Amino acid sequence: MTFSIKQMAQKARVASRQLAKLTSSKKNAVLHSIADNLESMTDSILEANKKDLEAGRQADLAESMIDRLTLSKDAIANIADAVRQIAAQDDPVGSIRDIQRQPSGIEVGKMRIPLGVVAMIYESRPNVTIDAAALCFKAGNAVVLRGGKEALHSNLALAECIKAALQAHSVDPNVVVVVPDPDRAIMNELMTLNEEIDLIIPRGGEGLIRFVSENSRIPVIQHYKGVCHLYVDSAADEAKALGLLQNGKTQRTGVCNALETLLVHKDIAPSFLPMAAAMLAEHKVRVHACEQSIDYFEGAEPATEEDWDTEYLALEIAVRVIDSFDHAVEHLEQYSSGHTEVIATQDYSRAQQFIRSINSAVVMANASSRFSDGGELGLGAEIGISTSKLHAYGPMGAESLTTEKFIVLGDGHIRQ
Amino acid sequence: MTFSIKQMAQKARVASRQLAKLTSSKKNAVLHSIADNLESMTDSILEANKKDLEAGRQADLAESMIDRLTLSKDAIANIADAVRQIAAQDDPVGSIRDIQRQPSGIEVGKMRIPLGVVAMIYESRPNVTIDAAALCFKAGNAVVLRGGKEALHSNLALAECIKAALQAHSVDPNVVVVVPDPDRAIMNELMTLNEEIDLIIPRGGEGLIRFVSENSRIPVIQHYKGVCHLYVDSAADEAKALGLLQNGKTQRTGVCNALETLLVHKDIAPSFLPMAAAMLAEHKVRVHACEQSIDYFEGAEPATEEDWDTEYLALEIAVRVIDSFDHAVEHLEQYSSGHTEVIATQDYSRAQQFIRSINSAVVMANASSRFSDGGELGLGAEIGISTSKLHAYGPMGAESLTTEKFIVLGDGHIRQ
Repeated sequence: MTFSIKQMAQKARVASRQLAKLTSSKKNAVLHSIADNLESMTDSILEANKKDLEAGRQADLAESMIDRLTLSKDAIANIADAVRQIAAQDDPVGSIRDIQRQPSGIEVGKMRIPLGVVAMIYESRPNVTIDAAALCFKAGNAVVLRGGKEALHSNLALAECIKAALQAHSVDPNVVVVVPDPDRAIMNELMTLNEEIDLIIPRGGEGLIRFVSENSRIPVIQHYKGVCHLYVDSAADEAKALGLLQNGKTQRTGVCNALETLLVHKDIAPSFLPMAAAMLAEHKVRVHACEQSIDYFEGAEPATEEDWDTEYLALEIAVRVIDSFDHAVEHLEQYSSGHTEVIATQDYSRAQQFIRSINSAVVMANASSRFSDGGELGLGAEIGISTSKLHAYGPMGAESLTTEKFIVLGDGHIRQ
Repeated sequence: MTFSIKQMAQKARVASRQLAKLTSSKKNAVLHSIADNLESMTDSILEANKKDLEAGRQADLAESMIDRLTLSKDAIANIADAVRQIAAQDDPVGSIRDIQRQPSGIEVGKMRIPLGVVAMIYESRPNVTIDAAALCFKAGNAVVLRGGKEALHSNLALAECIKAALQAHSVDPNVVVVVPDPDRAIMNELMTLNEEIDLIIPRGGEGLIRFVSENSRIPVIQHYKGVCHLYVDSAADEAKALGLLQNGKTQRTGVCNALETLLVHKDIAPSFLPMAAAMLAEHKVRVHACEQSIDYFEGAEPATEEDWDTEYLALEIAVRVIDSFDHAVEHLEQYSSGHTEVIATQDYSRAQQFIRSINSAVVMANASSRFSDGGELGLGAEIGISTSKLHAYGPMGAESLTTEKFIVLGDGHIRQ
């Protein structure tokens, strides 16, 4: 197949201008059509997915990758539901805030507008194709989707659902571009198109994200890892804290919002750590413990400096006893990955202080780190997570795919 | 002088944590001290400035550079006033918005927080030292200031006013770092410190900005040029439109918010262009005119494709007759630099349509492009202008130097 990625991106740029002007009701009608098409075209999507799975098994893909690649009737229904949820949300585009008259007499406010063209570079999960297309479309952005080669048939089948919806509503089909050849050279060229593309969001392993960050001429949303912490304060409710620990560490392990480090205040350690040890043992969680806590855990290994920085993504946790609230804050300032941190405390002031002073993307009091996810935080779906503070911070929904311009209303006003 | 820029940046990073927690009243007290010190230390600042000016004349600096470099008692009083205005503004840090209960029962909102450490790389204007330090301080960020070598004495004298104010209020002096050696190697090292610095803002000529954008490992705010347009619609009030043209093109020319291109609707051209030609001739403005307008202007040159892209920064303008409102929008979509565009019209719907459909950083109806400036738009002062849409768009005040984190309040909530 011969094609030019630059031409595709240019067409997406042109199409983005029409999209930026669509009304909310028109955009939502298109999103509902996509959801309907996903359901009516489920059989052909599953057939395409089967091809990818067979090729994946022949190529000896890791079982975890096969797992991420696999679609089912239920999975497709869930993807369709997410699209309907995105349709149900407020349209971020066009809202105006803070119009104020200035001393000169002009009125100045800010209006939210789309970014323009967003590129997604991702690995095996085919649902990203629909999630990303729906969120970008809602926010008025054209999108260029470059998925992994192992999911190409699935992605192209999903793209058919989008294409049919756009056609039915007479929207330029170039607002959603699925790159038909996942060749690396094409990805490399994509990253140089800073005239055509405003933002790149890589989703996948740390290697992919570093590669894109280091080679892109287009701004990149970065999310390297989530070393999420639970700090059990001296004033914690121990039963609640135990619930947060169990849910955060064991409910799902291969995800960035799972807990990786437990910090326990020394005053509560003697009563809390035996309960924690029993629960973690029951769930077969391997423990890396500091000197002050290691005796509570049967078979624990001594924690090294490296453990405080490690995202295990497994039934494995680092545990450290902490001298004071300030000591906990210091630990977090040194080792936080900027993702999600949780305090368990019944002390009002300490909860306030934690919420105010820890500047990770998501800061929680008495809630499981597993809530750190676009859907649970009320964004409908997420296109990615940013752990760097520029532009967006934390899970990114439709609003994170927009920016604000200034608007000025005068009546012939000139500057003195 | 031997010093390590990396160590300075690390100290700024540590100091930024204390600064992020300061109350608004404390920050404002420091800002007022800086303003007072600028006034009481005016003599020593002017003396240092004299050294820079003498060295500059010996080095045969261009007169425009000498002009930008020159301080006076009045100029220093104006800088002090700007600092007091920044103190008088709302503190962006700590404000919380949109707390909503989610279906799971957790409450989710967003809280505004500082970015951390900002680096400024700038050329001759010494006022940037104080403007940038004050805006960063207000927004809770430490700042690393790397000014031009031609302004080093002035910048160090200004830094003394900041240092004394920080000391008087017991704030870590490393929250404002003035790089004492403007060597290029040090600037190059600065741009690699992505662990210590969150954002780089270059201010100066296009060469400097491109150099920083292409070489920085830290996110960069970009502002290449301002090709600002005035579109005189068929329904314009011609007297007002003429005022906007005169003010935009002639009030000050070497600035990015001056007009560079005039678009005139064909229906109003026969009556408007003769007035425009007389006024521009009176102000000795050189005209590059399209075929349909060239006969109105004595001595005009034919406009070339290049003219539509040119920022003259001089008494020079490009003029084009436009067939329709849509044609004007097309011209802007093709040639806009993303800075500021103005429509002159008395037609309500067209003003609305222009404001909605043109996505430059600042979009105006019936107001002079010269208002496109942080002070005039109500930001107090500006640290720079962004013409790319990521993170900030348009003139940047204190709020643009912050980001938002998610906050989550639960009562032992876990994810199902």
